[in-house]
Amino acid sequence: MRIAPISQAECSELLNRINIGRLACALNNEPYVVPVCFAYEEPNRIYVFSTVGKKIKWMRQNPKVCLEVDEIGNSSNWFSVVVNGTYLELAEPQYTAQRQHAMEALEEFSLWWRTPLAQRREQVSDISIEPVFFRIDIESMSGLRAKFDAN
Amino acid sequence: MRIAPISQAECSELLNRINIGRLACALNNEPYVVPVCFAYEEPNRIYVFSTVGKKIKWMRQNPKVCLEVDEIGNSSNWFSVVVNGTYLELAEPQYTAQRQHAMEALEEFSLWWRTPLAQRREQVSDISIEPVFFRIDIESMSGLRAKFDAN
Repeated sequence: MRIAPISQAECSELLNRINIGRLACALNNEPYVVPVCFAYEEPNRIYVFSTVGKKIKWMRQNPKVCLEVDEIGNSSNWFSVVVNGTYLELAEPQYTAQRQHAMEALEEFSLWWRTPLAQRREQVSDISIEPVFFRIDIESMSGLRAKFDAN
Repeated sequence: MRIAPISQAECSELLNRINIGRLACALNNEPYVVPVCFAYEEPNRIYVFSTVGKKIKWMRQNPKVCLEVDEIGNSSNWFSVVVNGTYLELAEPQYTAQRQHAMEALEEFSLWWRTPLAQRREQVSDISIEPVFFRIDIESMSGLRAKFDAN
């Protein structure tokens, strides 16, 4: 087995193909990581949906984020991409057009994000709860691939 | 579909069954997340192997970590557990017995960790490079389950 870096084009290909990643943020030097469903837009944007919770509260205070996306077949056959970027909340009215664009980009995963939204509204009996759409502006990304080497 | 918290016992069950997670650390309020292979030991310890790289350098400076472990079938059928804990490097001679214990716990995933170690040695032509075994002392963990609800 060999572990080797992959190109920026291969990183983009993985981000296009895989739509579930793990998003890390930090506050007071404490890290927090959760799975998210995302849509990648080449070359340097990622759209994500969330209801307001711990990660949104933290990213509003510290917009530095790290997204890890992988495809793991087994211990000798995997890809992993790590993206560093900045959180930008697509709040209205400033980002109405960008927010609409994010909703469209995420439409195919709508079951994923509509359900927690509906539940959150049900739990707090507040129909006015708004979903949060945000963008990650990618500053850098790098990836590794492990591949079985018969030699 | 319903999203609901799972019990501590269900969190433990997932950590016992799944051995790949995403480990987040932070330095200067910048988050970093990478996949890791781990072994869980009930009730509150996790063993991990690594060569020395960015994550080890960061965790040596800031031992707060967050490990996310999930099992994602599809957008309406998944589990996710988030563990908060503290990094403890099992360095010799202070932790020789604990280090041996970690090696044994991780033995079944040895292809995963022996290969990067061998390669790192090859790249730097330094046979003396030592693998790093570390323990995460779990401070808290919580989990969510999404389940398809026919109603």
